Amino acid sequence: MERSQVFNFSAGPAMLPEPVLEKTAAELCNYHGTGMSVTEMSHRGKVFIQIAAEVEQKLRDVMGIPEGYKPLFLQGGATLQFSAVPMNLIGKTGRADYAVTGNFSNSAYKEAQRYGEINLACSSKDRNYSYIPAQDSLKLGPGAAYFHYCMNNTIFGTKWNYIPDTGDVPLVSDVSSCILSEPIDVSRFGLLYAGAQKNMGPSGLTVVIVREDILGEPLPCTPGLLDYRNQIKNDSMVNTPPCFGIYLLGLVLDWVVEMGGLEAMKAYNKEKAQILYDVLDTSDFYIAVAEKDFRSLMNVTFRTRSEELDKQFVKEAAEKGFLTLAGHRLAGGMRASIYNAMPMAGVTGLAAFMRDFEQKNG
Amino acid sequence: MERSQVFNFSAGPAMLPEPVLEKTAAELCNYHGTGMSVTEMSHRGKVFIQIAAEVEQKLRDVMGIPEGYKPLFLQGGATLQFSAVPMNLIGKTGRADYAVTGNFSNSAYKEAQRYGEINLACSSKDRNYSYIPAQDSLKLGPGAAYFHYCMNNTIFGTKWNYIPDTGDVPLVSDVSSCILSEPIDVSRFGLLYAGAQKNMGPSGLTVVIVREDILGEPLPCTPGLLDYRNQIKNDSMVNTPPCFGIYLLGLVLDWVVEMGGLEAMKAYNKEKAQILYDVLDTSDFYIAVAEKDFRSLMNVTFRTRSEELDKQFVKEAAEKGFLTLAGHRLAGGMRASIYNAMPMAGVTGLAAFMRDFEQKNG
Repeated sequence: MERSQVFNFSAGPAMLPEPVLEKTAAELCNYHGTGMSVTEMSHRGKVFIQIAAEVEQKLRDVMGIPEGYKPLFLQGGATLQFSAVPMNLIGKTGRADYAVTGNFSNSAYKEAQRYGEINLACSSKDRNYSYIPAQDSLKLGPGAAYFHYCMNNTIFGTKWNYIPDTGDVPLVSDVSSCILSEPIDVSRFGLLYAGAQKNMGPSGLTVVIVREDILGEPLPCTPGLLDYRNQIKNDSMVNTPPCFGIYLLGLVLDWVVEMGGLEAMKAYNKEKAQILYDVLDTSDFYIAVAEKDFRSLMNVTFRTRSEELDKQFVKEAAEKGFLTLAGHRLAGGMRASIYNAMPMAGVTGLAAFMRDFEQKNG
Repeated sequence: MERSQVFNFSAGPAMLPEPVLEKTAAELCNYHGTGMSVTEMSHRGKVFIQIAAEVEQKLRDVMGIPEGYKPLFLQGGATLQFSAVPMNLIGKTGRADYAVTGNFSNSAYKEAQRYGEINLACSSKDRNYSYIPAQDSLKLGPGAAYFHYCMNNTIFGTKWNYIPDTGDVPLVSDVSSCILSEPIDVSRFGLLYAGAQKNMGPSGLTVVIVREDILGEPLPCTPGLLDYRNQIKNDSMVNTPPCFGIYLLGLVLDWVVEMGGLEAMKAYNKEKAQILYDVLDTSDFYIAVAEKDFRSLMNVTFRTRSEELDKQFVKEAAEKGFLTLAGHRLAGGMRASIYNAMPMAGVTGLAAFMRDFEQKNG
């Protein structure tokens, strides 16, 4: 099939902007007349050092990252940060607060327990993670070194509709599935982290943005590579970084700028999501999984009234080029992940298919 | 410059075979008619699952990996394995033996000290890591859970010319700069690991080959992502793996097979290295850094009699398209890294340049 015939609704790795892929392909064998691929260059050489510095600056510009924060380009995905965050931050008090609003935040909560005393600040498990607990229901523990939450829950399709107020306790957030999809007020956070493979680039690159003054001594068992201070001191090059991912992130950031920046991305993403939520809200056939106030702009979750119909939906959609729409087994049903790079045509096409499928099977 | 005008002697990331890059570029926007880039695919989808399974099988075939061993496709480079190895293996006795024959093995030795009692089995620091200590000089400690060494020392250009005999103590080796360059008898090892960016693919992919029966309980502080048993159980997909690197490794393995496999690669690499060592051995101008018995086939280290001339060499070589020849600051002088993908023309060209430079400045 041609690219134009396919819309890939995968939760990640996910679609990349077509111009980004075309540029990558065009310069893959010879980057800017160096006679080398970007995958072949020494990370300590002038050309790549400049690429990395430019990508850092672009990320600072696009996200409005304030002074005192350092963006790091690391490896291991969000999952490795589930360990690195407590290893680096919990030492001050030995305690941290975790909000559990989905599968990944639950994994982070469980992983953190290896490294200190973890307080469950809230959980939305009672309604299968279909909502986000309110500020006044958060049970903040005493002496937390930080408060951790996952801003957008990829599997259940929910998003925090507020930034928790935790007083002086630094906020740490996994923003894997919403980074670059809309502005984030970085100054409200102690640390943000994200796997790249949804809105930023290929898998294998992990971005961490850390306020340097929250860093103290890491736990003694912390691998040197996971020590943020060490990575800050070495500009993310304690060892060879994931060069191709960093380069590709730069191209994605250029594209975001061309699209008008994060405010424009947000407007575009709202428009796209609304088209699908409108189908859900005007239908007796589809059931929205996430509660209305907490709907994600990135992951639209829904189901029909039977698992059999869900399967049929996914199968028929795929035949029409709307791929990877099966929901995660924990949420069931369907999930349309519509990150930045999903074009409007993919969303309007899916909406039309949904209405058509409802008419035939409703 | 055109690719044909450039030979990149970087120690890593390093040259990739041109046909591999061309194929990657050709199918970057649309992999095998899926309408998707390999960087956009869900790692849990059929297409990528098949890619990953095929790459694992190709690696098993090319390296002759016996039953009972599992190849893992991880992240974080060899440096993260400096932590993961003791975290996973030292638990049984709390002790391990480390051979220090260069910069990276020294880093591994220091990192391991966070996790147990580490015995320095040997060091070649006395002659600035220009040689490998002999078997009968290895001081094996009591109750070592494993013996760790770095097979090829990238910075100093030395290679172990024997596999240490450690009795029942499992051998662990960092083979980052020699994997796929010649056959390795995997059955002699408990664990092999390698960053991909020298002989296997782009940076950001790390290959671990582990004999499953040496694995016990990891240390309690081990991040879930670094727990080998967890990765084995999940076929390297505890979380999203570095998909692009895995795919590219597959293409590199196809190329190795086309080149005739690892015996043929070894013959080719010996021929290439010999051309440069012949220049060194027939010259009063150049000084070989590594002692003769321990010369690496991958990293040829040398210098002239003055730092000034060294700099001039590196500069003039670059002007002729022989790039990244400056030695690491710890070894000084020059280093020509000639991994699998360095074509014969690069080596003969460099040899001619070396003779020419000697004639002009000798």
